[in-house]
Amino acid sequence: MKDSFCDLGFAKLDTGRKERTGIGEVVFCQRKDDGFLKDIFSRLFEANGEVLGTRATQEQFEIVKEILPQAEYDKISRTIKIQREKKNLCGNIAVCTAGTADIPVAEEAARTAEFFGSYVERIFDIGVSGIHRLLSQTEKLEKANVVVAVAGMEGALASVVGGLVSVPVIAVPTSVGYGANLGGISALLTMINSCANGISVVNIDNGYGAGYIATQINRLAVAGSVKNQAGEK
Amino acid sequence: MKDSFCDLGFAKLDTGRKERTGIGEVVFCQRKDDGFLKDIFSRLFEANGEVLGTRATQEQFEIVKEILPQAEYDKISRTIKIQREKKNLCGNIAVCTAGTADIPVAEEAARTAEFFGSYVERIFDIGVSGIHRLLSQTEKLEKANVVVAVAGMEGALASVVGGLVSVPVIAVPTSVGYGANLGGISALLTMINSCANGISVVNIDNGYGAGYIATQINRLAVAGSVKNQAGEK
Amino acid sequence: MKDSFCDLGFAKLDTGRKERTGIGEVVFCQRKDDGFLKDIFSRLFEANGEVLGTRATQEQFEIVKEILPQAEYDKISRTIKIQREKKNLCGNIAVCTAGTADIPVAEEAARTAEFFGSYVERIFDIGVSGIHRLLSQTEKLEKANVVVAVAGMEGALASVVGGLVSVPVIAVPTSVGYGANLGGISALLTMINSCANGISVVNIDNGYGAGYIATQINRLAVAGSVKNQAGEK
Amino acid sequence: MKDSFCDLGFAKLDTGRKERTGIGEVVFCQRKDDGFLKDIFSRLFEANGEVLGTRATQEQFEIVKEILPQAEYDKISRTIKIQREKKNLCGNIAVCTAGTADIPVAEEAARTAEFFGSYVERIFDIGVSGIHRLLSQTEKLEKANVVVAVAGMEGALASVVGGLVSVPVIAVPTSVGYGANLGGISALLTMINSCANGISVVNIDNGYGAGYIATQINRLAVAGSVKNQAGEK
Amino acid sequence: MKDSFCDLGFAKLDTGRKERTGIGEVVFCQRKDDGFLKDIFSRLFEANGEVLGTRATQEQFEIVKEILPQAEYDKISRTIKIQREKKNLCGNIAVCTAGTADIPVAEEAARTAEFFGSYVERIFDIGVSGIHRLLSQTEKLEKANVVVAVAGMEGALASVVGGLVSVPVIAVPTSVGYGANLGGISALLTMINSCANGISVVNIDNGYGAGYIATQINRLAVAGSVKNQAGEK
Amino acid sequence: MKDSFCDLGFAKLDTGRKERTGIGEVVFCQRKDDGFLKDIFSRLFEANGEVLGTRATQEQFEIVKEILPQAEYDKISRTIKIQREKKNLCGNIAVCTAGTADIPVAEEAARTAEFFGSYVERIFDIGVSGIHRLLSQTEKLEKANVVVAVAGMEGALASVVGGLVSVPVIAVPTSVGYGANLGGISALLTMINSCANGISVVNIDNGYGAGYIATQINRLAVAGSVKNQAGEK
Amino acid sequence: MKDSFCDLGFAKLDTGRKERTGIGEVVFCQRKDDGFLKDIFSRLFEANGEVLGTRATQEQFEIVKEILPQAEYDKISRTIKIQREKKNLCGNIAVCTAGTADIPVAEEAARTAEFFGSYVERIFDIGVSGIHRLLSQTEKLEKANVVVAVAGMEGALASVVGGLVSVPVIAVPTSVGYGANLGGISALLTMINSCANGISVVNIDNGYGAGYIATQINRLAVAGSVKNQAGEK
Amino acid sequence: MKDSFCDLGFAKLDTGRKERTGIGEVVFCQRKDDGFLKDIFSRLFEANGEVLGTRATQEQFEIVKEILPQAEYDKISRTIKIQREKKNLCGNIAVCTAGTADIPVAEEAARTAEFFGSYVERIFDIGVSGIHRLLSQTEKLEKANVVVAVAGMEGALASVVGGLVSVPVIAVPTSVGYGANLGGISALLTMINSCANGISVVNIDNGYGAGYIATQINRLAVAGSVKNQAGEK
Repeated sequence: MKDSFCDLGFAKLDTGRKERTGIGEVVFCQRKDDGFLKDIFSRLFEANGEVLGTRATQEQFEIVKEILPQAEYDKISRTIKIQREKKNLCGNIAVCTAGTADIPVAEEAARTAEFFGSYVERIFDIGVSGIHRLLSQTEKLEKANVVVAVAGMEGALASVVGGLVSVPVIAVPTSVGYGANLGGISALLTMINSCANGISVVNIDNGYGAGYIATQINRLAVAGSVKNQAGEK
Repeated sequence: MKDSFCDLGFAKLDTGRKERTGIGEVVFCQRKDDGFLKDIFSRLFEANGEVLGTRATQEQFEIVKEILPQAEYDKISRTIKIQREKKNLCGNIAVCTAGTADIPVAEEAARTAEFFGSYVERIFDIGVSGIHRLLSQTEKLEKANVVVAVAGMEGALASVVGGLVSVPVIAVPTSVGYGANLGGISALLTMINSCANGISVVNIDNGYGAGYIATQINRLAVAGSVKNQAGEK
Repeated sequence: MKDSFCDLGFAKLDTGRKERTGIGEVVFCQRKDDGFLKDIFSRLFEANGEVLGTRATQEQFEIVKEILPQAEYDKISRTIKIQREKKNLCGNIAVCTAGTADIPVAEEAARTAEFFGSYVERIFDIGVSGIHRLLSQTEKLEKANVVVAVAGMEGALASVVGGLVSVPVIAVPTSVGYGANLGGISALLTMINSCANGISVVNIDNGYGAGYIATQINRLAVAGSVKNQAGEK
Repeated sequence: MKDSFCDLGFAKLDTGRKERTGIGEVVFCQRKDDGFLKDIFSRLFEANGEVLGTRATQEQFEIVKEILPQAEYDKISRTIKIQREKKNLCGNIAVCTAGTADIPVAEEAARTAEFFGSYVERIFDIGVSGIHRLLSQTEKLEKANVVVAVAGMEGALASVVGGLVSVPVIAVPTSVGYGANLGGISALLTMINSCANGISVVNIDNGYGAGYIATQINRLAVAGSVKNQAGEK
Repeated sequence: MKDSFCDLGFAKLDTGRKERTGIGEVVFCQRKDDGFLKDIFSRLFEANGEVLGTRATQEQFEIVKEILPQAEYDKISRTIKIQREKKNLCGNIAVCTAGTADIPVAEEAARTAEFFGSYVERIFDIGVSGIHRLLSQTEKLEKANVVVAVAGMEGALASVVGGLVSVPVIAVPTSVGYGANLGGISALLTMINSCANGISVVNIDNGYGAGYIATQINRLAVAGSVKNQAGEK
Repeated sequence: MKDSFCDLGFAKLDTGRKERTGIGEVVFCQRKDDGFLKDIFSRLFEANGEVLGTRATQEQFEIVKEILPQAEYDKISRTIKIQREKKNLCGNIAVCTAGTADIPVAEEAARTAEFFGSYVERIFDIGVSGIHRLLSQTEKLEKANVVVAVAGMEGALASVVGGLVSVPVIAVPTSVGYGANLGGISALLTMINSCANGISVVNIDNGYGAGYIATQINRLAVAGSVKNQAGEK
Repeated sequence: MKDSFCDLGFAKLDTGRKERTGIGEVVFCQRKDDGFLKDIFSRLFEANGEVLGTRATQEQFEIVKEILPQAEYDKISRTIKIQREKKNLCGNIAVCTAGTADIPVAEEAARTAEFFGSYVERIFDIGVSGIHRLLSQTEKLEKANVVVAVAGMEGALASVVGGLVSVPVIAVPTSVGYGANLGGISALLTMINSCANGISVVNIDNGYGAGYIATQINRLAVAGSVKNQAGEK
Repeated sequence: MKDSFCDLGFAKLDTGRKERTGIGEVVFCQRKDDGFLKDIFSRLFEANGEVLGTRATQEQFEIVKEILPQAEYDKISRTIKIQREKKNLCGNIAVCTAGTADIPVAEEAARTAEFFGSYVERIFDIGVSGIHRLLSQTEKLEKANVVVAVAGMEGALASVVGGLVSVPVIAVPTSVGYGANLGGISALLTMINSCANGISVVNIDNGYGAGYIATQINRLAVAGSVKNQAGEK
């Protein structure tokens, strides 16, 4: 039932979310109590036969592994994953970064999208200070249904990409940089103020969120839509 | 040619944009010099047979009308439009607002999307302080390929909508409010920090931008995609 | 005497506060010198026969325990408590949280209110991204004389709750979140700008403050008032 | 029906609010379209036999008067009111200000509370730079069920009052001041960080909100409560 | 004498500046009292035989013209100028803008540099949302000794230009934009955090400052240097 | 000679400062390299026969003690001191704090003033939430030539003190607090916006600065002035 | 009586202030209601035989003149004054500005100090970009008991002056500047972070406050002090 | 080829940068993965025969040394360097600091400039609180083609230097300070708002960036320019 939830006392797992929104609940591990973590992973794995955790430390992975030994950990993206079997990945999402320091956030986005069944093309280190690197990837970018642009420092990547492609660009500011980068706020402001069209923005370092939205858009593109209400104006 | 542009000296009209990104250039009228405005409207109308202007004052409309008498003005959204003929609108975009004061921004989004050929469902004044109003519209929301959520003050509308639908939500913070709303920055922060999935954010009062992205997503949904690169992981 | 205080040199304990405001002084342990801590706990216990400390570390608890072995520590809320005996709890305060990470702040509020004699109903993890979880608790919320709404990230919980109940809502922003949450400032701004009525806000993570105010309101509701100056206008 | 609303197209009047929260909808006039304003005033007057509008200009009052000639306007608080007849005011709310420039916000709070049936005691110009003025009013303050403290500039009034009374203090920062007052943000921060207990804060210049919450608390105090769930801990 | 100044009572004109820094004092007209303005223009014209005023209104120009009828006004850059005779312009400064709304600031930079004897190449409307427009100007950019990059909104122009040229780029953020552009602060932050090398930044809308620094660099390039202290390390 | 300095290469000790400003240079130890620290302490001790260091860690004290074994360390104020002999302290400076957590900053102020020869009266923990504690100290406050008011959280102490005394109040915001205290910025803003007269403000936690200025004022009061230029207006 | 006040209903004039703090109440005219203004001016003139108003418009002056025809207005400082007769001005306060645009704030400071009986030396337009202008005034600066340093833009004047004199410097940031000056906040931050000793800061554009404090210090210097409590340490 | 790059998968080394901009790529070590670091150092050393790394920890140096044993580390500037042989340094860049705590940033600037072949004059600890120290260095400053001014706290050094020299000043704000220095933002704002001409600003603590730009300007000065397009206006 789409309005159901599972009440653990300290938490109310939104088990109806998959039916309601098409995508199941994912575990945001950061600051979760160890006991809570185990309970939540067990319940979600039981419910869905697979589970993804983000922002997980190595220590948290060890704890999850005790009860779910098949769990896998990816250090760069800091994700824990239990997946039923190989997935058919469909559609095409391009995940690109401005620099190498932005890769952890980009990998969180890419692995989230893959977990949800999307095909992902990674295009890293194409920041605007050497624009030829970005231009050399135009063909790849044009194949995507949606582009995720991950950038810290001044965050200009999103604007340039937005001017090159015809599909939506999900911009992810990162906290990469120092001084007046204000922990990523500067990159966020750059992206929100972009002079290019088709750019919308998620929270700083929110790779998961970008992977989620990219999946939503990719699914719409792959499936086509029956929500077509003809009108005239 | 997709890299072409038209050099007016003071401006380089991106006439290749339609080929490159699928959607032609729109005139952002705010702070444009009267002479520049006329030139730009003429050139774009010549090139595309239709033209849209946003953030236009009544005075600017009068100036445009001198040279393009078929131009129409909408006071609420402050848009100027010349359109070839009735358009077939396809797909489904829901544009909703928290309050009545958010309607001008929502109308800018809706009219932009309609100009680009999208069918738009307007759902106004469903702010979260009377949650039953929002819940009564669930059916309409579920029909959309993408939702535009327009809200000022604390901007909580996007989070609640995001938890109810399976499609992307484009959140538009507005400058509606006073005091600690900081001209819309508070609503922007609310939306960027949303605990719900599937929400990405555009600039404060940027109805045009939201209408543009919603159109991109709606088109992908309507057309389906040939960009489907099967993979496995 | 209500204007009395106890001068320890480094501190002037407001021993008149209980008479003046109805509620005795509580120890804010954070950054207190170990020696000062012992002195203050002793004096307040002597004066009132009970004492509560907030923001206490495990180490501080050990220090207090040396001189007051009957002290108890709660790890989640980080409170130290010495209580005379079982208390009769009266009235009804609902303490609810958006997520599980907000529980420590909520527990500080709940335990503070209980220490002061209020009955507390805990309702955790009812954030707005799955609005049905919140709606399923409406009955409980309606039984309260005052609601404490604890939320980080975008802090939208307070607005939705405010629209559902007829009693005051004390909103507590938490520092839960990352990036543009600005250490809780974003949630604070959301709550201050709430479009719902009946919401007032305390400092970020200030569970104690919310528990205090909720107690004040709960007492007024329980006791009724003799401060009724009939007028006409 | 408490979940009912009245759909005007541009607005969905929350006609169920009175049943749901005990207090009917009030018109926030600022930035409302003239046509909308008339419609909303008519409908609410029809529904409730009385109506209050806040943040109204003289011009807006003239417009409302055309259709509701019995409407009255108060220049200082900028409120429009139609009231059935003399009201019995009960309980006791103290509304105090730091300076004379804070009076308009205080009057908005006071008149809102009176419209909702509360007795209000006005205590103006008792800012902390001449603390004897405040101390001379202690007796009056002690008679209140709740105190509304309105202050701009550095906003220290709330802290001092909070230390003197045993009831909740609703602090209203105002935009009064200049330079580093940041349009009221400085006073808001002062009040949120108050070292005194029992203080919660509403938005800058939000007299209406303070009057609303004060009424909620005053009602609880006057009526006493049947929501008394005895417990023991 | 390089430490001389002319004391007008209300002002101390730095008449030694030309000798000390190589460039004479310019009049910043904004908020200058009319009487002061006349005095300052007269004195500087007397001293140097020419004078430049920036941020001047049409009204201020009329006032200056009364006493110096040979003065000329440029509406776009809002500069007043009296120049001895045609100047030989040397070197090469490229002044480019992201959009047409940035032209007033760019013209202030260009005219300042020309007044100080530099040759200026104007390259307008080459913002990064249509990167081909910028790339088509590479040849012109490469001819410059220094580039002034003027951009509002997200201000990404400076980063892309910085990656293309081998000379210093003076970045000028403008207040063009709305909402989260924060009056130009967002563009300033973008530029300060640029991932490209060779970019330094001046105040928002400070075309004059950029023209001044560009002249200093252009002069060094044109003249070559005798300040060459050979070393080895 | 008052314009002399001692060039150590990495530093230029302002040995003329004592002659120029009446008070010798003090060592700000924070982030100083160990080697630099020794050199600077030696040189200043040689020059003046005494020396004061602020913001010193225990480790830095050990290093200084190696070369200057007569050095003394005070843990609370984190100051290192070598003093010729007992000093005659003159005048009267009141140093007061809002809470006990503000004492370290207050002690830095007090010890600085004492090192410079001022008599200091300490009045701690008189914050405004229990105003009677402050009022009980009025007599002591009235004896001072200048008051230093040290407060974190909302920083209201300065305003109340400013209204009680006829002498200047030096307000020192501290970083004591949490959440919206913004590391002391909130207290700073409170003090800068104070509605009371006679209050000026120094940097957050800058006890040294306050002790310095208080000494300057105290000296003027003690010595009287020969700078008395009679005029008439 | 020093705790007396005069209750006008809308205001409680602090008539005890002169006795308590040595200086009578001054009228801050900004945003004062016309009726209130008249009442306050009359009462204070009655009480003290003289009165000063700051931040007054020409219109407000006309209103005051109706009832107090002997009132005088100074346009630059925007002050209204009624003074008994010529005053003997004693001591020496130096009021200096960085630029000519800072003069209105400096004049407010100077005229306030003169009204309170201090001799003032004006030293205008000595900003640090032409440091020789400042150095040429050293002798004058050294004659002062206290210096008021008024500066906008980057506000560096206070630091340089602070390094030159032995007396306290009251720094007044002004809102002069544009762009990243943030309405004076930048200058305020510069002054608060000054590396020079002896600098304390008042609110942006608060000439009155600076004139008040300077007077307090000047009086201490002129009168010498009987508050000399000898001690030894 | 100037548009070439070397694709390492995780990175796209901009090997065309030297040809395109005249200066080769430098390694920003902060937050770089150990494996990535080795690869990048090897490749750049291979390509250019020399390599510079900034923001390197001692640990990172050890890692680089394993594969490139000739690498050298400078602790103060935290730079790693492999240089072909002694370099002829030409031109003249003055690098000055306000205090000793600013030296690490200044050394990063100086060593970067030297690595690129510029002669550097170091002038440390000449902050404006003892202006005679700065004035004593005027002769040295006048010999430079460009000045780098490094300062934390209030950052006033740049303004004073800017008024003394005729060449460009690159201002580097540092994070040195505490409290309201906001991690260097205050110094940045001071420099951006400078009342002196010829000052442009780089990011907080960005010594590398300043050294880079100073080199660009120094080269132009040394080489003279062939980019001299005579014009007349």
